[in-house]
Amino acid sequence: MARIFGFLGPAGTYTEEACLLYDPAAELRPYPTITAVGEAVATGELKEGVVPIENSLEGSVNFTLDLLISQPKLFIQGEVVVPIEHYLMAKPGTDPAGVKVIYSHPQALAQCRIYLEKNFPQAEQMASLSTVLAVSDTLASPIAAAAIAPRRASELYDVDVLDRGIQDVAANVTRFAVLSLSDHAPTGRDKTSMAFTFDEDTPGLLYRALGEFAQRGINLFKVESRPTKQSLGEYIFLVDCAGHREESPMKDALAALSEPISMLRVLGSYPQWSPQGNP
Amino acid sequence: MARIFGFLGPAGTYTEEACLLYDPAAELRPYPTITAVGEAVATGELKEGVVPIENSLEGSVNFTLDLLISQPKLFIQGEVVVPIEHYLMAKPGTDPAGVKVIYSHPQALAQCRIYLEKNFPQAEQMASLSTVLAVSDTLASPIAAAAIAPRRASELYDVDVLDRGIQDVAANVTRFAVLSLSDHAPTGRDKTSMAFTFDEDTPGLLYRALGEFAQRGINLFKVESRPTKQSLGEYIFLVDCAGHREESPMKDALAALSEPISMLRVLGSYPQWSPQGNP
Repeated sequence: MARIFGFLGPAGTYTEEACLLYDPAAELRPYPTITAVGEAVATGELKEGVVPIENSLEGSVNFTLDLLISQPKLFIQGEVVVPIEHYLMAKPGTDPAGVKVIYSHPQALAQCRIYLEKNFPQAEQMASLSTVLAVSDTLASPIAAAAIAPRRASELYDVDVLDRGIQDVAANVTRFAVLSLSDHAPTGRDKTSMAFTFDEDTPGLLYRALGEFAQRGINLFKVESRPTKQSLGEYIFLVDCAGHREESPMKDALAALSEPISMLRVLGSYPQWSPQGNP
Repeated sequence: MARIFGFLGPAGTYTEEACLLYDPAAELRPYPTITAVGEAVATGELKEGVVPIENSLEGSVNFTLDLLISQPKLFIQGEVVVPIEHYLMAKPGTDPAGVKVIYSHPQALAQCRIYLEKNFPQAEQMASLSTVLAVSDTLASPIAAAAIAPRRASELYDVDVLDRGIQDVAANVTRFAVLSLSDHAPTGRDKTSMAFTFDEDTPGLLYRALGEFAQRGINLFKVESRPTKQSLGEYIFLVDCAGHREESPMKDALAALSEPISMLRVLGSYPQWSPQGNP
């Protein structure tokens, strides 16, 4: 029986591409929001849900981090890294020179600003709610239009691809998290994601915490202080490190870490993504 | 003569509110993008430019961080913290019960998701390129529409305010940076922002770097590892600490820090924002 993935929909999103890369045989169910994917996993409606967690240009996806911090039943069971390549697509037969309007999510329009100024200086930019809805907006447009959207959308809609890889910065990848009610058993090439806060605002608390990893030779992949929702300046720290929470030295570091810390939430230990092998 | 601020326009944005809070007497010039504000300051067309740098819900504004990292002539000379309160506004005389369409930037629509589901379940959500353009889209709409937009926009356009503070999470503040060709002289209540990278990916390098601050009792306000544009997993660290780069102990920490580090860019030392006193 095929695995079932809930994902941030609709069909055609980069999240759908991530699901297909993670398990090409999986059955896919779109959900309207990141929160809805998380709720479906937390309530047991779904075993696995796939949501974006970090983009190399835009940084962390805060809806996903908030979901993981606020919903203690959810764990990261896996990750998938997807190259993001914006495609330009239009109604079949559209002459690129005649395009008057370009639809996309404002973030995607911003990521293609230099390309659009150079190649479509005459076209008006119009906002869509998502890169996939940009394709329906384009198809519904009474005047010649094009959409900036994921490659996957060009397979699902009747469109011509006018151009590809049109983002101003070539290297653009997004990391997706596979959410579940448990994390992954050790595989020998794991990473662990965690979130923590301190009660006191004493200089050096983060330094002492990171020391638990550094002194054990544990490689740090990511550290981020995010403002909590109370006010700017009170922070939650998000850390990704090499190793599995059930194995030394990570296990010892986590035990030592919990002492000076007021909240420590291990978001999950899971295999590091490699495009060759899929857990 | 009034100070002149370039800002991320158009008129009516939260950035315009930030300028007015920083210096109510300043003359304001809107620019279309964060990059355009930065270029105008770097070329000397403007002495000061105001751009968003961090939001308590959305995290860092990456266009601004990229601008500061890539343009070594620019420094942060000051900061302003503005409470973000989304207003709902419509054509004068609009009956809220009859609103069929709600325009805004997709990020603002997402920040008001629960409010909209509860109060406007029947209204269609439509994307605009910005929260200010949502007001023009609303005024141009042939059917009854409303816009989620900044308070300031309700002073500039002929609209009725239907509701205010409609964002799902009450505490939402944005920090704005005042950019200039130099940073600020010491005032005794300063902070310093910096960016750095390491050549090697050795466990513990960030720990050693943060130790230069911790051992000197310097309070850390923020630390963030951002993927560089090369690939996910190579990081630039962004750190905000208490103190001025020309004064001990910050001066000594920066000198000690530069040794194990391959790139250190002090983005500026400037007074910590206080709504009472403006530098």
